Amino acid sequence: MDERGTGWRPMQWTGDALILLDQTLLPREERYLECRTTAEVAAAIREMRIRGAPAIGIAAVAGLALALRGSASTGGDWKQVLDDATRLLESTRPTAVDLFHGLKRARERVVDVAEAEEAARVLSQFVVELLERQWQIDQAIAEHGAGLLPRGVRVLTHCNTGALGTGAYGTALGIVRRAYELGHLTHVWVTETRPRLQGARLTTWELRRLAIPHTMIVDGAAAWLMARGEIEAVVVGADRVAANGDVANKVGTLALAVAADRFRIPFYVAAPLSSFDPGAPEGSAIPIEERDPAEVLRLGEAWIGSAETPVWNPAFDVTPGSLITALVTECGVVPSPDRAKIVALLRASSTAGEVGVRETERDER
Amino acid sequence: MDERGTGWRPMQWTGDALILLDQTLLPREERYLECRTTAEVAAAIREMRIRGAPAIGIAAVAGLALALRGSASTGGDWKQVLDDATRLLESTRPTAVDLFHGLKRARERVVDVAEAEEAARVLSQFVVELLERQWQIDQAIAEHGAGLLPRGVRVLTHCNTGALGTGAYGTALGIVRRAYELGHLTHVWVTETRPRLQGARLTTWELRRLAIPHTMIVDGAAAWLMARGEIEAVVVGADRVAANGDVANKVGTLALAVAADRFRIPFYVAAPLSSFDPGAPEGSAIPIEERDPAEVLRLGEAWIGSAETPVWNPAFDVTPGSLITALVTECGVVPSPDRAKIVALLRASSTAGEVGVRETERDER
Repeated sequence: MDERGTGWRPMQWTGDALILLDQTLLPREERYLECRTTAEVAAAIREMRIRGAPAIGIAAVAGLALALRGSASTGGDWKQVLDDATRLLESTRPTAVDLFHGLKRARERVVDVAEAEEAARVLSQFVVELLERQWQIDQAIAEHGAGLLPRGVRVLTHCNTGALGTGAYGTALGIVRRAYELGHLTHVWVTETRPRLQGARLTTWELRRLAIPHTMIVDGAAAWLMARGEIEAVVVGADRVAANGDVANKVGTLALAVAADRFRIPFYVAAPLSSFDPGAPEGSAIPIEERDPAEVLRLGEAWIGSAETPVWNPAFDVTPGSLITALVTECGVVPSPDRAKIVALLRASSTAGEVGVRETERDER
Repeated sequence: MDERGTGWRPMQWTGDALILLDQTLLPREERYLECRTTAEVAAAIREMRIRGAPAIGIAAVAGLALALRGSASTGGDWKQVLDDATRLLESTRPTAVDLFHGLKRARERVVDVAEAEEAARVLSQFVVELLERQWQIDQAIAEHGAGLLPRGVRVLTHCNTGALGTGAYGTALGIVRRAYELGHLTHVWVTETRPRLQGARLTTWELRRLAIPHTMIVDGAAAWLMARGEIEAVVVGADRVAANGDVANKVGTLALAVAADRFRIPFYVAAPLSSFDPGAPEGSAIPIEERDPAEVLRLGEAWIGSAETPVWNPAFDVTPGSLITALVTECGVVPSPDRAKIVALLRASSTAGEVGVRETERDER
């Protein structure tokens, strides 16, 4: 089956391999990558062949499952193998908290298991569950988010938050998809999203496949588009939501939020609860990944500037909760997010058994 | 001679050729282009081999001088040749008003001339004057602007406003140079400036040659840098200043101004009086050039997205005067620019014989 009629499968789990649509090659080539070892999964995450906070959370769990599968066949201390695999996967990318939550929840699943074979089976089943569950989460976010948008809305989005970013239906782009299905959305403005060009390469690719009308702009043109009155809402994703509602997301998000605030355009952040980090009291506590200057200076084989040029290349930035009109989660909408509302949300969802994060959880990374 | 010790010559006038450092090839190649006809100058401007509002203003006058030189040698109706050349040069790029002012002033110089040879000589001399005068203008802007910056300042700049953009010392980047010479400036943050990457290709090239410490970022990272408290001033150029202080400049400028306002960072616009357009009552009256989508979708031979992707590619945006801390001109600083202050500035400079624009001038394009 393909992903419920979209025609492509960003992430598949066979039980002994994680099969990924290599996102570094899109849109010019649709090539699938088979990861059969933890190291291959870790490399795919680090090299951004799979990306998007929810997707790398699931991929990381698949990486653990592959480690245990290997351990079950070769023997040895599988708990040590699990620890080593966890450390390797944790080292891939620091900002999206879904990855750390995924690894933590996976380890909890096997804490009382004695045999490697059984642990491998449990984690393999957990990957299947996560993929299925992500579909439900994305659908719920899409439903809640689409309900916020007026008829005829023209939306601006940043980076890629579609099926490619979650392995399912998409978060912010899921809202766009649902609003379009409902006949409410008339146009999507897509930022190219420097330096990795996820908007230019991935979001336009998804929107073209979905036949949703869209136009791309350079990141710097978004404020001008807002000033001209051509956008009714901004919808973006999140890599980590702090306890006070501050959001780490793809670099450039803060600039969009500041401009949206200036031009009185609602700014929505779509985030599954797996992206919430109650252990980070505010945005300044979120580690922000800094990546290779070559990502900025090179494009494929072409250098855009001199290789000697000093570059600062943060992959993310932090948008204060005060600039966010509402957070959109699978458990509902949180308007004007603050600490009290987020505590209440996480408590309610935890009671309802909805989430893998709890208010009292602390990361000890 | 080189340009007063910088080691390169962006624009030279020999009397029968305009020699340009081809800015589309920088930084990977330093190749000079000889324009011997009006058509060659027009093509160089349209293709952005020469760019920057003051520089294309001077180049356009050289284009007229070449037309008259040709006419003088071949005979015929030189006034018709002048009109045709004017129309061709006016059609190259619509936003920077320097180009239209340059052409208008040049035509005024020869309005009472009878012979083609004499007219050609007058315009050739005018190009020499403009190049010399631009050096003085840039120096004055640099002096006024550097005086606004605190000791130890870290400046953010956008696009290229250096020697390459004026043919002389630079406007906004001239302020940076002077502040560095004075020992006041500690660092320059350079936006790469999508889509044409003037920051990445040209500004870093100039700063490296000048040995001024700098770091490049993607355009979307600027707000995040401001939020982190790493910038004390933003200094940019202008392609056209409306009568009320609104400024058209390279796309992305408005986003920087909005962010600077949010984070309480002074936002300075360096503009020679040749960039002022009293005929445009406000920013909305300034024509904004929209360029080929391929500029966004391609980089050299590489496509960053699908060729089918719809793209909106405005070359400029408009920043309201209310977001500008001060305009910096060769005749002084205009804090919190508004209509009354700009009228007063233009009247005073006109009285002093300083400028080629007058309050009562109207463009009839």
